This record gives sequence, C-alpha cells and structure tokens, in this order.
Amino acid sequence: MALGTGYSQQNCNLARALEVVGERWTMLVLRDCFYGVRRFSDLLAHLDISRAVLTDRLAALVEAGVLVRVGRGHPEYELTEAGKALWPSIYALSQWGDQYVSPGNYPGRVFSHAECGTQLDRFGRCPGCGTIPGPEDLVVAPGPGEAVHPRNDAVAVALREPRRMLTPLRPRSDA
Amino acid sequence: MALGTGYSQQNCNLARALEVVGERWTMLVLRDCFYGVRRFSDLLAHLDISRAVLTDRLAALVEAGVLVRVGRGHPEYELTEAGKALWPSIYALSQWGDQYVSPGNYPGRVFSHAECGTQLDRFGRCPGCGTIPGPEDLVVAPGPGEAVHPRNDAVAVALREPRRMLTPLRPRSDA
Repeated sequence: MALGTGYSQQNCNLARALEVVGERWTMLVLRDCFYGVRRFSDLLAHLDISRAVLTDRLAALVEAGVLVRVGRGHPEYELTEAGKALWPSIYALSQWGDQYVSPGNYPGRVFSHAECGTQLDRFGRCPGCGTIPGPEDLVVAPGPGEAVHPRNDAVAVALREPRRMLTPLRPRSDA
Repeated sequence: MALGTGYSQQNCNLARALEVVGERWTMLVLRDCFYGVRRFSDLLAHLDISRAVLTDRLAALVEAGVLVRVGRGHPEYELTEAGKALWPSIYALSQWGDQYVSPGNYPGRVFSHAECGTQLDRFGRCPGCGTIPGPEDLVVAPGPGEAVHPRNDAVAVALREPRRMLTPLRPRSDA
C-alpha cells in the first residue's frame, strides 16, 4: 500500500509502519477494534465518518494484514496478530493525549490489568504485578475525562461500562 | 490546530493526539528531532520533502508546543518536554514496523540504554536494569535492516555511527 511519494525513500521502519497506519482515521478505526467493535455499521456510527473513507481504511487494513474480514452478508472485522501488536502504539499515543492535549489533562479512558484489577501506568505496565499485559488481558473503562462531550451512539453507550478488551461488542444484538 | 472535521466529535485523547501528530510526515520530523537534527536544511535533506510541507509541519508542532524554535537567522528546532514525551509512541510504531513491515523483519535501528549498553526490548524496557529509559538516556545505532537502501544525505551519514539521542546533530559544522 503506497500512500504517496517519499516515505519509500526513508528506509525506515517507522515510515513503513506509517504507510499502514498513518492515514487519517486509521488509528481510530483500530482503537474501536480493540474495544471490540467489529461491524461496519457500528464503526460508521461511532466514528462519524463517511462510508467511503471507512470502506477505504478497512480495505487497506485488510490488505496490510492488520484486520481480517470474517463472515458474509454482514461481515465483521477482527484484528490479526499483527493488528493486536499495534496496541502499544495506540496506548502510547492515547497516554500522550491524556497528558498533554486533553481538556484538564484527564484520561478519557483508563485501562486495567484484568487479572489483578490494577490500573496501568503510562508505559502500559501493571504496577501490581510488573508485567506489560497484552490488549486481551485489559479492561477498558471510562476515565474522568470521558464525560466532557458524551457521545450517544450505541458503541459509545456500551463503552460507558467497563469492558474486557477484544471481546465482541455488538450493541444492537446485545440490546 | 484543527486538521479537518470529525476528530473533534470523537471526545477521545487518541484523536486529540492525532490532531497534533497525525499529519503525514509529522512523526518522521519528530523522529529526526530525537536523533538530534535541529536545522530546517538538515530536515529537508534527510526527509526529502518539499519546503512547504516541512514549513507547515514545523509551524504546527511549534504551535502545539511540541517543538520550540530557538535562535534567529538560521533557527533550530528543539523538542519541548511535551515533545520528548512522544518518544514511546514513536518507539512503539518503529518496533511494529521492524516486526511486521520491514524487509526481512530486521530492525532498521537499534536502541540501547546508554548507562548499561543493553539493547531495549520491543516495549522500550532495558533488560539489563529493568527500567524504561527516557530518550535522553538512549543510544541509537544502525540495525541489520539499515543497509537495504542506504541514503547518503549528511544526516543519514552521521547516523551510521552510534549516537546519543537528543545531542545536537549538525552535520556540516561538525565536518
């Protein structure tokens, strides 16, 4: 997937990573996938983007091996192993956002190690047991910065409760 | 800095972070700043981008408080505290690039803890002493994936030797 000229001359694996995840909205699509969102219609409602942009981003992520499309008719999108390995990048950017650009510097969401219930530090470490848990071992919950401008789409409503990451979130069939 | 419509509705600190660093080339500009590059002309030569794009990205990073412009005539750009705090995001994306999208899965560069000389793991931990060193405590050196398509601009040449991160890299006056 070439997104333009230039990065290919950079001979740099950061540049190669950005060729896959550096497009506008791509990281936010992946964020939702980590929260368990799997359906096109749920991503569309939660991200508030055009169908064309979402279709393009999902196709690029499938082509890059970050997501896999499963099922027919109303397919779902699942993170592959390579996709799950993007969690530290998303977590690091979110933490930076919490610390430097959030209103009041409040975390929008907090992440805890499911096994011991301890909230992660900004490097993704569990202070309770000293490990860096993978995304499948985390619980995401609203943080004190969450309610500034609450969204009311079905995914946003489901995310008002603590959730084990990567467990399928299908708001309408769960209702 | 609003880069378009939509992210502002996301009420998410990842989205707010991407408003600052999500533009094409921005992360690569910052990568070079961590390596010690400070001058417009050196960034221009190493990144191979247009003056207009580089000017825009630098201005946005200064406005966001990530870089500060110092000196007159030929100013230099330095990472602020907020800028230095972006290192974990850049490191995480680079590591993902090394592991999933590099030719042969070789690291382009390797990062070691200056104090003990130990190479960091993919989470940025020093296996020698168990800490997560900040960027100022790291040495960057070419990795086995470096020589695939070597660049020959002055910054690339300087980066063929191990370097303490964040120490000023001024290739022409050093020569």
